[in-house]
Amino acid sequence: MILRQLEHILLAQTYTPITRSSSYQSMRCSSIARFFTSSGGPRAFSSMVTRSCKMESESFTFGPYKINPKEVFYSTNLSYAMVNLRPLLPGHVLVSPRREVKRFADLTSDETCDLWLTAQKVGSQLELYHKASSLTLAIQDGPQAGQTVPHVHIHVLPRKGGDFEKNDEIYDAIDAKEKELAQKLDLDKERKDRTLDEMTQEADKYRALFA
Amino acid sequence: MILRQLEHILLAQTYTPITRSSSYQSMRCSSIARFFTSSGGPRAFSSMVTRSCKMESESFTFGPYKINPKEVFYSTNLSYAMVNLRPLLPGHVLVSPRREVKRFADLTSDETCDLWLTAQKVGSQLELYHKASSLTLAIQDGPQAGQTVPHVHIHVLPRKGGDFEKNDEIYDAIDAKEKELAQKLDLDKERKDRTLDEMTQEADKYRALFA
Repeated sequence: MILRQLEHILLAQTYTPITRSSSYQSMRCSSIARFFTSSGGPRAFSSMVTRSCKMESESFTFGPYKINPKEVFYSTNLSYAMVNLRPLLPGHVLVSPRREVKRFADLTSDETCDLWLTAQKVGSQLELYHKASSLTLAIQDGPQAGQTVPHVHIHVLPRKGGDFEKNDEIYDAIDAKEKELAQKLDLDKERKDRTLDEMTQEADKYRALFA
Repeated sequence: MILRQLEHILLAQTYTPITRSSSYQSMRCSSIARFFTSSGGPRAFSSMVTRSCKMESESFTFGPYKINPKEVFYSTNLSYAMVNLRPLLPGHVLVSPRREVKRFADLTSDETCDLWLTAQKVGSQLELYHKASSLTLAIQDGPQAGQTVPHVHIHVLPRKGGDFEKNDEIYDAIDAKEKELAQKLDLDKERKDRTLDEMTQEADKYRALFA
């Protein structure tokens, strides 16, 4: 049950509109980074801004969709981690290879290692950040496993005692919302769920963890 | 829901009795391997026997429990793959690091890479073998994520179209059986589920895929 619902959320996320061009973001970021570097502000924050800006000037795709770089909070040469449109739990994020690869077995050894080392790092930081005590890590590898976006992705969910019962209620709510969403998507492709600002703020917080 | 049920099955498996000593298995295997090598039998089968015997003479632990090497069908220097006492679906197996490590983040980089490259290889072969078209791969990392055996393990499940609805029925049945099982375990620690012979036969088939 949980797995199918994870993918419903994803399907919604892929319709994320991109509101600012990469060049605009890159320009804005360079100015901020310069300001913090020259002002001698806290090194971690300066580094965070630089890293954040580097990511914002990059291009991330997720299957056939473009991902707004503001939603990406960590990346390596081969993998990236992004926030979710409708997280099942606080800190529910996705980790993907940069290369568009449908099935897990299609990844090279290097990509496979990097993807899981990234998920390991991201999971540890978000578990700590959200004061959780466990993690769920899952890949729905192929359409019969519930995969809706044909691009490998790991679901990383920080877990806490008692959240499962709560999850069940969340699932029911999501099921109901999914039906509304599907209807909405038939009419237009905008989303009314979490705003880009909310997602950006979340990604900013997570990005600071890896600075 | 699916994740919690996966762990219920595991909890049962850990009570697997070990019926033959390692030394006995090792002796028996050496004879078979010699026979096939000297007789010039099919190379793949000879190799399979040698590999199988090597594994049968090895020791595998899963948290505080010993795993019967007959249930192990693939191994590397750092990881191993074993069959399940009560698979949710045909080909539902577990992949673990050899070293007893509770949390995913406790693995070294080498162990993390090897574990997932093993799961990737095992998943591909079992998907093909079971004529499935997708895979579910999941780690319940810590007790709040449903982990019952404190030793990292990946659930690998070959998936087919329409198996999810069937799964729901299986889950109900498993839930009922779990309650019986828990009562049984309070009285004695033997299992009456799949026999060791059944599990050995399954492991033998899978072992041949990697020969």
